[in-house]
Amino acid sequence: MPNLLALDAGGTSTRAVVLDRSGTCLGYGRSGHGNPTATPDLAPISIREAAAAALRSGQLPGSAIELSMGAVAGGRDAEHVVGEALLGAGIDAPCELASDVLALFTSGAAEQHGYALVAGTGAAAVRVADGEIVATADGLGWLLGDAGSGFWIGREVALAAVADLDGGPSTGLTRLALEALEVTADLDEIGDEGRPVALEDLGDRVYAMPPVRLSRLAPAAFALKNDAVASDILQRAREALVATLRRVTVDDVDGPIVLGGTLLSRQQSFSDAVRHSLASSDDGRDVRVVDDGLVGAATLALRAAGITVDAATHDTVRSTLAALSSP
Amino acid sequence: MPNLLALDAGGTSTRAVVLDRSGTCLGYGRSGHGNPTATPDLAPISIREAAAAALRSGQLPGSAIELSMGAVAGGRDAEHVVGEALLGAGIDAPCELASDVLALFTSGAAEQHGYALVAGTGAAAVRVADGEIVATADGLGWLLGDAGSGFWIGREVALAAVADLDGGPSTGLTRLALEALEVTADLDEIGDEGRPVALEDLGDRVYAMPPVRLSRLAPAAFALKNDAVASDILQRAREALVATLRRVTVDDVDGPIVLGGTLLSRQQSFSDAVRHSLASSDDGRDVRVVDDGLVGAATLALRAAGITVDAATHDTVRSTLAALSSP
Repeated sequence: MPNLLALDAGGTSTRAVVLDRSGTCLGYGRSGHGNPTATPDLAPISIREAAAAALRSGQLPGSAIELSMGAVAGGRDAEHVVGEALLGAGIDAPCELASDVLALFTSGAAEQHGYALVAGTGAAAVRVADGEIVATADGLGWLLGDAGSGFWIGREVALAAVADLDGGPSTGLTRLALEALEVTADLDEIGDEGRPVALEDLGDRVYAMPPVRLSRLAPAAFALKNDAVASDILQRAREALVATLRRVTVDDVDGPIVLGGTLLSRQQSFSDAVRHSLASSDDGRDVRVVDDGLVGAATLALRAAGITVDAATHDTVRSTLAALSSP
Repeated sequence: MPNLLALDAGGTSTRAVVLDRSGTCLGYGRSGHGNPTATPDLAPISIREAAAAALRSGQLPGSAIELSMGAVAGGRDAEHVVGEALLGAGIDAPCELASDVLALFTSGAAEQHGYALVAGTGAAAVRVADGEIVATADGLGWLLGDAGSGFWIGREVALAAVADLDGGPSTGLTRLALEALEVTADLDEIGDEGRPVALEDLGDRVYAMPPVRLSRLAPAAFALKNDAVASDILQRAREALVATLRRVTVDDVDGPIVLGGTLLSRQQSFSDAVRHSLASSDDGRDVRVVDDGLVGAATLALRAAGITVDAATHDTVRSTLAALSSP
């Protein structure tokens, strides 16, 4: 019986699953950084390793795969990268690519209509109709958008620390940001030109790293309880994310709202507050949270192979994958 | 009679002047990019060329220089770069460095107390007391600050174009931004995922260039008359710059406010509006606009050589330099 391989390649980790045509997952593999735009050197290796591990775990040769489906972050032009990486794992079958956001939506929904809101390092919302993304809001990257994302929160943490060191509102974020950036200068030490040494050092550290790495500072905002500046940052992030979703919601497309990405799947109270905002306005819409896009990529693989995926099949994918991938 | 050399090395151009101890300027030279942080390969060449040109123009050998003073943008650690570059021009004399913002202040003021507000690609304000910078606001670079700067305005232009293409307020900035970024897609063309192709292309262009190059889009905001979005960007830029200056002004430091940098020296109506805001609040403070920091660097060179620079000497520097450097 021929099998399918599905991939979910993200900035932090890459996951792969081998499944049969009934939706039963047979093997699972996981590796590191898989975004071909952010980490062009590592992504092909990660994709090959995850696919090879999924085959090993399912005790199947590469020749058992009839079709692969890759959901790849930042992968507008990733066909070649993914194809070569899968060849490296011994898989010489047709390979299709899907948007990582569509895969994430499909992880949470057997339905082919609805919405997804993703907030990880970046942030975007989409409307899905007839199984395709028909409208997108934000997802414009750290310099032009991604409002409410991990980068956005991290940059706000940096700006709050800068303001504090420059005579603005005091916040516990300053200490956490300086620690995260390994700035050790004493907060009272004043350098040249009337400026705290810690502020000059913070600037030097920030400009020495790729800007998108400011997302490293986001955990500081989540770590503090009862800090007015941190609470305000998180509230503005939630409002921005809800506003991004609003820009794609329309009355005549029903279906669930699927939430995903680190901020919405791992930060429980943040995610709960977003759900609460949505519940109080998007009356009656079903809001679901997913960990990643792998169930969705597997579902899209089944559909690409001509198989109709109903709620029962979707549930088979979900439960058999959970059994394989749980620690 | 021994002479002095002064340098003003900025992101766009580098200027040098040779002067005698009376403040009379004898030779002037000009070259290209001189910021050792932004353009490490070009800056040493520019500095050497400007210095050599100033010597040639004054018909003096390098040995005629007893002391050099360099005002270098981004030059926290530029001693070595400037020293080597001047050696390359045949100048083997002690070399001192000054803040480019202090040089700019000193271009507009023989006084040793007062304020400077600079807005070029970046933006900062300082308070000067006893000839030294004693307080600084902003100047934190494009990622952490520079509110109201050329970068800031350029990024706002990009965000306004993105919002327009994404269903937000319509603005003439969109066409200008797409032209500046050489995006040729038709505005009505919709690509994958319900997004205008022009928006995707704009994103690709922006992320393919160094972020600070968004300052290229700033001229679009100045080019449009009667565009509500452009006017709003420029008004917020002016407010941000005035707010930055406010953070360093104190009652017990008098003296002039010196305005400089491209936005305040070349954009007449923008600069006039900033002066107007300042006049309506900083009662009685003298507001002056300067083109660059070269008169100031020359003044600082005289002071470093132990010469007292009064208003008359400052005026000698200014007028003899203007005679040499006017086209």
